[in-house]
Amino acid sequence: MKKLKRSARLVEMTQYLLFRPHTLIPLTTFADRYNSAKSSISEDLAIIKEVFEEEGLGELNTLAGAAGGVKFIPKVAKSESLRFIQGLCKELEQPERILPGGYLYMSDIMGKPSVLNEAGKMFATAFSAQEIDVVMTVETKGIPLAYATASYLNLPVVIVRRDNKVTEGSAVSINYVTGSNKRIQTMSLSRRALKEESRVLIIDDFMRVGGTVQGMMDLLKEFRATVQGVGVLVESGEVEEHLVEDYVSLAKLSAVDPKTKQITVEPGNYFSKESDLS
Amino acid sequence: MKKLKRSARLVEMTQYLLFRPHTLIPLTTFADRYNSAKSSISEDLAIIKEVFEEEGLGELNTLAGAAGGVKFIPKVAKSESLRFIQGLCKELEQPERILPGGYLYMSDIMGKPSVLNEAGKMFATAFSAQEIDVVMTVETKGIPLAYATASYLNLPVVIVRRDNKVTEGSAVSINYVTGSNKRIQTMSLSRRALKEESRVLIIDDFMRVGGTVQGMMDLLKEFRATVQGVGVLVESGEVEEHLVEDYVSLAKLSAVDPKTKQITVEPGNYFSKESDLS
Repeated sequence: MKKLKRSARLVEMTQYLLFRPHTLIPLTTFADRYNSAKSSISEDLAIIKEVFEEEGLGELNTLAGAAGGVKFIPKVAKSESLRFIQGLCKELEQPERILPGGYLYMSDIMGKPSVLNEAGKMFATAFSAQEIDVVMTVETKGIPLAYATASYLNLPVVIVRRDNKVTEGSAVSINYVTGSNKRIQTMSLSRRALKEESRVLIIDDFMRVGGTVQGMMDLLKEFRATVQGVGVLVESGEVEEHLVEDYVSLAKLSAVDPKTKQITVEPGNYFSKESDLS
Repeated sequence: MKKLKRSARLVEMTQYLLFRPHTLIPLTTFADRYNSAKSSISEDLAIIKEVFEEEGLGELNTLAGAAGGVKFIPKVAKSESLRFIQGLCKELEQPERILPGGYLYMSDIMGKPSVLNEAGKMFATAFSAQEIDVVMTVETKGIPLAYATASYLNLPVVIVRRDNKVTEGSAVSINYVTGSNKRIQTMSLSRRALKEESRVLIIDDFMRVGGTVQGMMDLLKEFRATVQGVGVLVESGEVEEHLVEDYVSLAKLSAVDPKTKQITVEPGNYFSKESDLS
């Protein structure tokens, strides 16, 4: 590539880093790419780092030494997330969202890539320090959220099927009981979809009692996998006890009254957890 | 916001634009944001435009006048896409991917956000000039691809269900026949999920005869919607005639021989269509 001016280099490096989160990039990559001295690259990175941190886009971590380089860790500031979640809560509180059975219509919100990207960034912030190999979800509604999260963490996604009609070779199936209406359901995952002993982050859109998440955890035991974290967009606060204890929720549905059509949604436990970003 | 130097402003504006594709941003937004003169902002944008276009990231279109501003249109160069798709074809040709029934195991590839983002960018390039209100797909495997595409086009996603157990109020269901094994299947979409007369882009992961895509088109008639385009990641070239004539495919599966385990995959018709990017 031809030698670029600093101004052009800054634009180029910014996009290069933003599209490669959680990836170690040796300084020589940039030096070769722009035909520039490493010292100039280091100065560029210092400028980018300052803007990223002031803007709350995330961290730019520099690792010194022969195996060193720079790594972009996307993070979102709690203050910005809180504004976003408060807006989401307000939208969710619209009375016309109440569906039969006390469910909430969320498909329109879950259809917006910008909402999913924002929520995914929050999960990527919460789990940025964990050692994770794969993000897992169960079809259907959690899928886009799992991909948004995985994209910021630079991880693959594995999707558990809600039936046992898996046509992808041998599969592990389990029956589980949904907490709310005590129905027995099946979920399955093909053997080749997940390596044994993987470290897994579970992501889902909604958690009531936690039967589905617990089902995924039980399924993971069959793969001798470890659960490194659980993230749900909305948890239901109506239940007295969750089957799953350790999880991160972005919003909490406190009450749905089908008669008065009154819904209360508030920010989830994401905001009560400790964090270095405020 | 405090006054930023040009170098910091370039980093900031680059990320701002990248995260807001297909969105008109008035110059005053930047001028206010950085406490800078519009003339400086215009110079910054000229630098960013040049890098974006040289790097094949897309176009930065400036609209003059009172209602003017700047709009980032993500595009990917055909040459870069071809390299990516050739790599994908090679991966798909691995003999161990053949599943019973002549299907191809693609879940590992479809689990990689980077692959989906690249494919999504290609669809966003192909359909960048169309007037589209919403991206539609049918559960399950096409979902992440639809979101990746929608994200680059700044559009919402609507997901058609493969059953009629929709609990989201009144819904439209249709029966359709899958082209390959002539089974009758059902798909449905709730009335509130799609506005009447919407302009729709259909995205799916795999198309054999085209029965599923045709089913979505029939369903859309019930919403008086128009189909502005159809994009599939992989089309099967084994069939003599597709039910759907006008579509964009990124790759083409020419033959699967369950006996010799020989698979042939080549770049799709995306590469034979006219385009201003080469």
